[in-house]
Amino acid sequence: MTDNHLHNIVEALKEAKTVLIATHIFPDGDALGSQLGLATILESMGKKVIRYSEEKASYLYDFLPESDKLITELPQLEQIDCVIALDCGDKLRLGKAADELQKSKNLLVIDHHAGHKNFGDYRWVESTRSSTGEMVYELSLQLGVDLSNEAAYCLYVAIVTDTGSFKYASTSARTFAIAGKLLEKGLNPEKIAGKLFDNFTESRLHLLQSVLSTLELYGNGKLAIITATKKMLEITGATAEDTETFINYPRSLATVKVAAFVKETDEVISVSMRSKGTYNVAEVARKLNGGGHRNAAGCKFRDGETLKEARDTIFNELLPLVQD
Amino acid sequence: MTDNHLHNIVEALKEAKTVLIATHIFPDGDALGSQLGLATILESMGKKVIRYSEEKASYLYDFLPESDKLITELPQLEQIDCVIALDCGDKLRLGKAADELQKSKNLLVIDHHAGHKNFGDYRWVESTRSSTGEMVYELSLQLGVDLSNEAAYCLYVAIVTDTGSFKYASTSARTFAIAGKLLEKGLNPEKIAGKLFDNFTESRLHLLQSVLSTLELYGNGKLAIITATKKMLEITGATAEDTETFINYPRSLATVKVAAFVKETDEVISVSMRSKGTYNVAEVARKLNGGGHRNAAGCKFRDGETLKEARDTIFNELLPLVQD
Repeated sequence: MTDNHLHNIVEALKEAKTVLIATHIFPDGDALGSQLGLATILESMGKKVIRYSEEKASYLYDFLPESDKLITELPQLEQIDCVIALDCGDKLRLGKAADELQKSKNLLVIDHHAGHKNFGDYRWVESTRSSTGEMVYELSLQLGVDLSNEAAYCLYVAIVTDTGSFKYASTSARTFAIAGKLLEKGLNPEKIAGKLFDNFTESRLHLLQSVLSTLELYGNGKLAIITATKKMLEITGATAEDTETFINYPRSLATVKVAAFVKETDEVISVSMRSKGTYNVAEVARKLNGGGHRNAAGCKFRDGETLKEARDTIFNELLPLVQD
Repeated sequence: MTDNHLHNIVEALKEAKTVLIATHIFPDGDALGSQLGLATILESMGKKVIRYSEEKASYLYDFLPESDKLITELPQLEQIDCVIALDCGDKLRLGKAADELQKSKNLLVIDHHAGHKNFGDYRWVESTRSSTGEMVYELSLQLGVDLSNEAAYCLYVAIVTDTGSFKYASTSARTFAIAGKLLEKGLNPEKIAGKLFDNFTESRLHLLQSVLSTLELYGNGKLAIITATKKMLEITGATAEDTETFINYPRSLATVKVAAFVKETDEVISVSMRSKGTYNVAEVARKLNGGGHRNAAGCKFRDGETLKEARDTIFNELLPLVQD
């Protein structure tokens, strides 16, 4: 898991005239920030860059500079010298274009996920890095590029997103040093944090209130479950996207070691799980055909299970975790 | 407001044998972190240090190393060479000991509040600093002290508290550089963030839910008011302390420019106000005999006003702010 072809990646990018940058489906701030940041960096080197994404940026991230340049149709790959896959722990994370992108001449992979599954021609994988954005910053040093304000903005958003604003264990002294360097490019940390964290709509706040009222605690307060129903979304006028980060509320209880958020939408019932320390929710997620990390994982129920059945399955899987 | 007697403060501390460190009443993470951090630093130089506080550390901060060494009785000041007031924008913030501390031989003041009102013999005041903890770090460099893990822990808590985990405008490139240096002393950012932010009790989460249900919006969503009643505290079993940070929820609404939180407790009705950008809540607070900064201020109603009267007064003062 410690492939380090950084040197080859730098050489390939220096030589390339046309580069396509892809990232994972349902892209978050690290995926989009590192993608758009690297695009700006490579353009400043005179390269033609294509920003590919399976779908447009969510409203939560469309403030990112040049997020409107994302294209959702894969172009002909023959004319592209390099394809870069950013922040993908697994080739499947590339979405429906995964197979096509695998066939490209030169697939470069930069990722920080623990449990990364190798793919691509050259890989730079460091699981101790806070974010792919942090790695793109290091890459910019290797490429000898002085970052523009826009590139710094994108990489800062990437780092802030994936560290929860410097709260997660992956935050290192190097992360802080890089954040300081990025800030010197003229960023306003309050405005950026505002875009990332103070983006609540009134309907979203009402939805939060409804969801918090569903809190269930078990195992001496070690296991917490919250639930969002279709009805709550209807009543508050909120969307499924609005539930992002709600899992942090049960997780914020001092006693809680494992938290689950069961969400019912039109198509599917999805479950987000979070844990602290050595409590491992990735195994439960995998058993239920989902995936993720030890402390952050998820799965979906697609086969007509009711909300109650999904919740009961999750409860039965998670309760033993906190009873050991 | 830019008094810089840092050199004199360093000299006075080098010479002193006995030092008393005081901070402001209702001490937060910056007050306690900088106080306990500086105490450890000075003790490592062989000095006798007294950590004075009007009251014991709140349960929110009692995880700080050596917070149990705080004394709440002011000792005889004749035998003390220096008194240091940390994080006090005004001498009144020292509480009931303010007058007594003013009479000490050598009162040294370190503060980062905009609008600082001069007091003491030597002052080092820099309003562009993120926190007093950041300033104590700079002081440790001047004193030539290599920080212990405990001192680094305290100063890191101070910085994280006063920047909202590096989200506020006061976060500078220097702040990040210092945070990186502190982390190198062996800190775990996730554990510390957990202590500061994942410290919810179940009753506190239920109180949050009740308080969120009181949300009122005015002025096209620019003004938000939330309310906590005595009854809510009784029903949920939460305490007034538990309401800390609740003001951030209405503030997190994208449309909101000014947010107020009206809290009823047994003794008093208190109001916290937050604003964004150039919206100034400090003036309203001052008019109502309170105080604070442009974007964070507060006041109290002590004269038998009902909760409704207090809320109406605040509403009438704040609505014109967002209608300009």
